[in-house]
Amino acid sequence: MSSNRLIYLPLGGAGEIGMNAYVYGYGRANKERLILVDLGVTFPDMDGTPGVDLIMPDIGWLIDNRDRLDAIFITHAHEDHVGAIGLLWNKLQVPVYARPFTANIARRKLEEQGHDPAIVQVIDSYPDMVELGDLSVGFMPVPHSIPEASGVVIDTPAGRVVHTGDFKLDATPVLGDPFVPEMWEEVAKPGIKALICDSTNVFSPLPGRSEASVGPEIQKLVASASGMVVATTFASNVARLQTLARAGIDAGRSVVLLGRAMKRMVGAGVESGILTDFPQTLQPEDVRDIPRENLMLIVTGSQGERRAASAQLARGKYRGISLKEGDLFLFSSKTIPGNEVGVGRIVNALSEMGVDVVDDSSGLYHVSGHANRPDLEQVHAMMKPQMLIPMHGEHRHLRAHVQLGGMRDIPGAIAPNGTMLDLAGRQPRVVDHVETGRTYLDGNVLIGALDGVVRDRMRLALNGSVMVSVIIDEDDEVTGDAWAETKGLPEKGKHKRLLADEIEEAVNDALGRAKRKVISDDDAIEEMVRRATHQVSMDQVGKKPEVTVLVSRLVAE
Amino acid sequence: MSSNRLIYLPLGGAGEIGMNAYVYGYGRANKERLILVDLGVTFPDMDGTPGVDLIMPDIGWLIDNRDRLDAIFITHAHEDHVGAIGLLWNKLQVPVYARPFTANIARRKLEEQGHDPAIVQVIDSYPDMVELGDLSVGFMPVPHSIPEASGVVIDTPAGRVVHTGDFKLDATPVLGDPFVPEMWEEVAKPGIKALICDSTNVFSPLPGRSEASVGPEIQKLVASASGMVVATTFASNVARLQTLARAGIDAGRSVVLLGRAMKRMVGAGVESGILTDFPQTLQPEDVRDIPRENLMLIVTGSQGERRAASAQLARGKYRGISLKEGDLFLFSSKTIPGNEVGVGRIVNALSEMGVDVVDDSSGLYHVSGHANRPDLEQVHAMMKPQMLIPMHGEHRHLRAHVQLGGMRDIPGAIAPNGTMLDLAGRQPRVVDHVETGRTYLDGNVLIGALDGVVRDRMRLALNGSVMVSVIIDEDDEVTGDAWAETKGLPEKGKHKRLLADEIEEAVNDALGRAKRKVISDDDAIEEMVRRATHQVSMDQVGKKPEVTVLVSRLVAE
Repeated sequence: MSSNRLIYLPLGGAGEIGMNAYVYGYGRANKERLILVDLGVTFPDMDGTPGVDLIMPDIGWLIDNRDRLDAIFITHAHEDHVGAIGLLWNKLQVPVYARPFTANIARRKLEEQGHDPAIVQVIDSYPDMVELGDLSVGFMPVPHSIPEASGVVIDTPAGRVVHTGDFKLDATPVLGDPFVPEMWEEVAKPGIKALICDSTNVFSPLPGRSEASVGPEIQKLVASASGMVVATTFASNVARLQTLARAGIDAGRSVVLLGRAMKRMVGAGVESGILTDFPQTLQPEDVRDIPRENLMLIVTGSQGERRAASAQLARGKYRGISLKEGDLFLFSSKTIPGNEVGVGRIVNALSEMGVDVVDDSSGLYHVSGHANRPDLEQVHAMMKPQMLIPMHGEHRHLRAHVQLGGMRDIPGAIAPNGTMLDLAGRQPRVVDHVETGRTYLDGNVLIGALDGVVRDRMRLALNGSVMVSVIIDEDDEVTGDAWAETKGLPEKGKHKRLLADEIEEAVNDALGRAKRKVISDDDAIEEMVRRATHQVSMDQVGKKPEVTVLVSRLVAE
Repeated sequence: MSSNRLIYLPLGGAGEIGMNAYVYGYGRANKERLILVDLGVTFPDMDGTPGVDLIMPDIGWLIDNRDRLDAIFITHAHEDHVGAIGLLWNKLQVPVYARPFTANIARRKLEEQGHDPAIVQVIDSYPDMVELGDLSVGFMPVPHSIPEASGVVIDTPAGRVVHTGDFKLDATPVLGDPFVPEMWEEVAKPGIKALICDSTNVFSPLPGRSEASVGPEIQKLVASASGMVVATTFASNVARLQTLARAGIDAGRSVVLLGRAMKRMVGAGVESGILTDFPQTLQPEDVRDIPRENLMLIVTGSQGERRAASAQLARGKYRGISLKEGDLFLFSSKTIPGNEVGVGRIVNALSEMGVDVVDDSSGLYHVSGHANRPDLEQVHAMMKPQMLIPMHGEHRHLRAHVQLGGMRDIPGAIAPNGTMLDLAGRQPRVVDHVETGRTYLDGNVLIGALDGVVRDRMRLALNGSVMVSVIIDEDDEVTGDAWAETKGLPEKGKHKRLLADEIEEAVNDALGRAKRKVISDDDAIEEMVRRATHQVSMDQVGKKPEVTVLVSRLVAE
């Protein structure tokens, strides 16, 4: 057994927030039997990934080793943990395990891609375990901002590993499994070989607050509102949806859910049996005659997403409903870094309508779903792991979390994506570095982040584009004039003449002076045209555009 | 006099943060003599303005009325107040007034564009005033995060207007003019017709803190550091630079300023006479042999700008200096919304090097330069204006600021860019809406935000690009095969064949079936080619690219 390894290999989520995918394995070196925990996505933006639809981990290593992979375990139904299961499952083709709510969402994703939803097997939580050769794996219920979130308990011949998943310590989570120290202590009883632990909130210095703490505040706010109330939060935070809806009903308001994700999540809650007393809601078309002071909308789009319900309401009407002066809009959510501008756009549009906006800056109407610094310390103390491997966080989070463990003399390792650790010894040991990266869903094609496709699009966005057509006749002579079109460039440059005309002149000049050897060589023509185009463009408009040259050679018929 | 108007017209800065430009005028309707307060820029981003170099207000209205414009007053040297003076002065050609430090920076900007620096006239501050017909205008010193910031006192036959500029109430600003209530009260003595007031921090609930409060904390931090210390802040915050440098010297460290803006700002401080005892600094090449624990760098790039010193240090070496484990990096700055991702990139790169990063989350190492909510209330109480017009802020800030004034029964108006108010009566009155917008510096050309140039570039970035060349011979028949090139699109689609090949086939098919009438009409060919390209692309890669068609017609020679 001493030559066997217990490996940990993050393919996504370690060194970033989002796109979680963690490989565990046990066995002889490079023969380990493997499981995968989570297969999530991250979201593209105009800044680095314009036109991309979704970002997934590059699981090339796992595909190469899929004969060793026994199963995928999904900890919870957030997109950054389950989002890639539909698109990437086909490349792995192993059973997927999840608890009921998560399974419901995972199955929808598989079905959307034409796969059998029965691929996802629903299992009970700890102490029930799935036996997979040397490994025995079970879900440990943890509170988080979505129903039925789970840590993963992995028993191996080298000891017990606990992967926390995303979690918080919440004794009163409104919906689902509360934090029960006794359960954590029981899990820890045999001794924890390694704790693989959520790091996202390691910089939050105060203990996390309970989901139950926002209810009374939201109730007060809604009860005191005089116009229509609109509240937005993450659709997957079903406990919050219930709190919001309850506050509406208690204030004598009819409640409407707006946005597809809202209905999907509540539907999943009902179907999976965890949501039994969600307040009754109405359809938008059924509330036309209800006075606005008796209405409460719960809507998607807390992050300022342009197509979500909140953005559409901010722009005007959505499903027949519009906001007006005196209404109240509540962000029962935090703004994820990078989304500030989009959220600000909505707040300002609402301000222009005279709508009062309340956000989470007071700390009253939103709580995080992740363990803060003191909560992490509490977990370290409860679990007494032999080693601590921080996961889910940017490099700075992983680093700070290792330092936090160090204060308790727990050995740790910063292991960003692609770092293979062997946890079998007394300390984590780096045994390999695996190539990782990002796979993009671009339209309906999967491409690699480094394929150059998106880089080319960004260059077009920064520099603009010039297309030049050159025709060479049967005798290897230029025929007619070159033709240039520009796109994404100022029409006229400093001479106040059309830039396209200036480029055509320069290209024709160059072609006229070109030697026969150049004209007979497409690459040489391209190079010459590109140079002439760059020169004119820099001079006229101060930009060096992307140039495409189309050389057509006429052949004798 | 009763038919004369006292107008206020923001062209930039009202309804946004950045790009300040405010017109004031007095006289008969549409004959008012005008002054402009500030002419700033705002910064482009990949999200909405890829490839743009700078964003300025569209001052078309002012250009149309420049025969009525008498002067430009610049309140302070931040880019969002002075940044467009070099690029737009030529369109206005009137004297520019500023205090010495601001004038120093404004002159550099004019010189860069080939204008005479003497255009900028240095004037003393209040009670000195410049007489311009019916108007009498003076600078009122206010504390801010840059030396010699000023409000503007505008005396008119209809009463005194005070435009605060960006300001805070700081009795101990380290450098420059402290807040002296007596001066504000003296300005207010004749009665304030209208207070036009900074609104950026209206949502900050606690009183603003003094610049002097960060000194002792920074000193403690630097003194306790064991490796090299690197600190970043806005270069224009010369008081902070002095505090940082002093903390370095006091800890026995040699101080190096890195980044062009640092040297420019300190240089302007020295040249304008406001900086008399800035600690001695060394050049990067002079510190090679100094142990790192005796070094302190003060560097540009607090907002994560890719080319600034901090980003370059995070990527590796800069001017021969590199960071390593045990060094300390201090962000003595806040992250402006929208810059979180860029700043995060630097922090994570530093984390990978083992550098300890300290930011402003503790509240110890940075203070804002703007008046917070209680400070604004204090100003309302001191100035007792007849009306309050909030400026410099997004719509939500302007709205909240009007509400704040309302609590003191001060009538106010939300006047976003383009709203012309007449302040001559007892209440502000909207008298006109003027077309405003944004002008882009794109390469070396000024273009309008709505010209479509940037929209085209964003479309290229989102959708990719296809160029198709079609040649029609002398007999109006298609000759040879159409040729397609793609850029920013996946090379192969779902058939695993080259997308460009598939497009060529589809286009050639369509051309082969086309009627003679289509072939004789360039627009009809274009439309047909575009449709065929879209169809193939949607089918193969799920995207609808931007299509450029180059139709060449051969002519009989």
